[in-house]
Amino acid sequence: MLKSLPLSEVYRLLEPGPVVLVATADKNKDNVMAMSWYTMMEFEPPLIGCVISGNDHTFDILKKTKECVIAVPTLGIAKKVVKAGNTSGRDIDKFKEIGFTAAKASRVKAPLVEECYANIECKMSDASLVGKYNFFILKAVKAWIDPKAKNPQTLHHLGKGIFMTSGKTVKIASKMK
Amino acid sequence: MLKSLPLSEVYRLLEPGPVVLVATADKNKDNVMAMSWYTMMEFEPPLIGCVISGNDHTFDILKKTKECVIAVPTLGIAKKVVKAGNTSGRDIDKFKEIGFTAAKASRVKAPLVEECYANIECKMSDASLVGKYNFFILKAVKAWIDPKAKNPQTLHHLGKGIFMTSGKTVKIASKMK
Repeated sequence: MLKSLPLSEVYRLLEPGPVVLVATADKNKDNVMAMSWYTMMEFEPPLIGCVISGNDHTFDILKKTKECVIAVPTLGIAKKVVKAGNTSGRDIDKFKEIGFTAAKASRVKAPLVEECYANIECKMSDASLVGKYNFFILKAVKAWIDPKAKNPQTLHHLGKGIFMTSGKTVKIASKMK
Repeated sequence: MLKSLPLSEVYRLLEPGPVVLVATADKNKDNVMAMSWYTMMEFEPPLIGCVISGNDHTFDILKKTKECVIAVPTLGIAKKVVKAGNTSGRDIDKFKEIGFTAAKASRVKAPLVEECYANIECKMSDASLVGKYNFFILKAVKAWIDPKAKNPQTLHHLGKGIFMTSGKTVKIASKMK
């Protein structure tokens, strides 16, 4: 079962740069895409800036519905993640054909992705840069984490379908958040 | 010796989300800070969007000089990276006291960081979001890579001084860039 994650901890999921899935819902059809071009912009409430190509089906849905879920996948579903990145929701029902399980979110209509160890419900915060840069600024409004996932093996895209997966962890005394 | 890297390959360095160093030069004093909040925004010419706190010395220098170098460090210098993140160029000469070596860049006055396996020379492209979000949009104008660095062990900040280091690499047939 997913556990609620304090919003103040969201940056720890996204700062290391894993490939994420962006799930949206349009009318009754859920959709999902893969994304690497995003950054944290504020700790709390967490702001997340992301670039979504104007060619992507998600671009249109996000502009219209103003909400999405950012979900963090791991190595176990890497092939599904690549499939989500290589197909379009205009052509297929990605949840059904690729095999993701949609779960009900609490604050947005977009679905959580059950196969992901973390899910962040987001609402549009600032769309003023969408025209110039396809850049959406989202606000996290609720976050969920699988408490059983210890050292999740996130995927980090090196380009051309090559992914670095997370290796060992080091701790260095730091004053950083 | 560093080798020139085509600008079209820059996204492959930054997309996986490593902690980077941001080097600047103000008059004759070089400075460097650690940064995780950035994203690719365009492939070529590469645009990089990044959040730099208004409290950081780099914020003032970057606003003034409109150029910097983004350098990618690895596990071997993790302690230096944390020190760069935990100190201010207002108080100390970070290159000298932490032990980074400044090398001459080709297109900007900011220095390359010799200890890093990749260095990207950047110029300010759009400062219109600095006021609202401390968000700088930079354009990469020249990139360098150490050709001897195979599978560099990049650092990915999980918060509070805990870093995931890169582990094994997987390749999945993909149409993605």
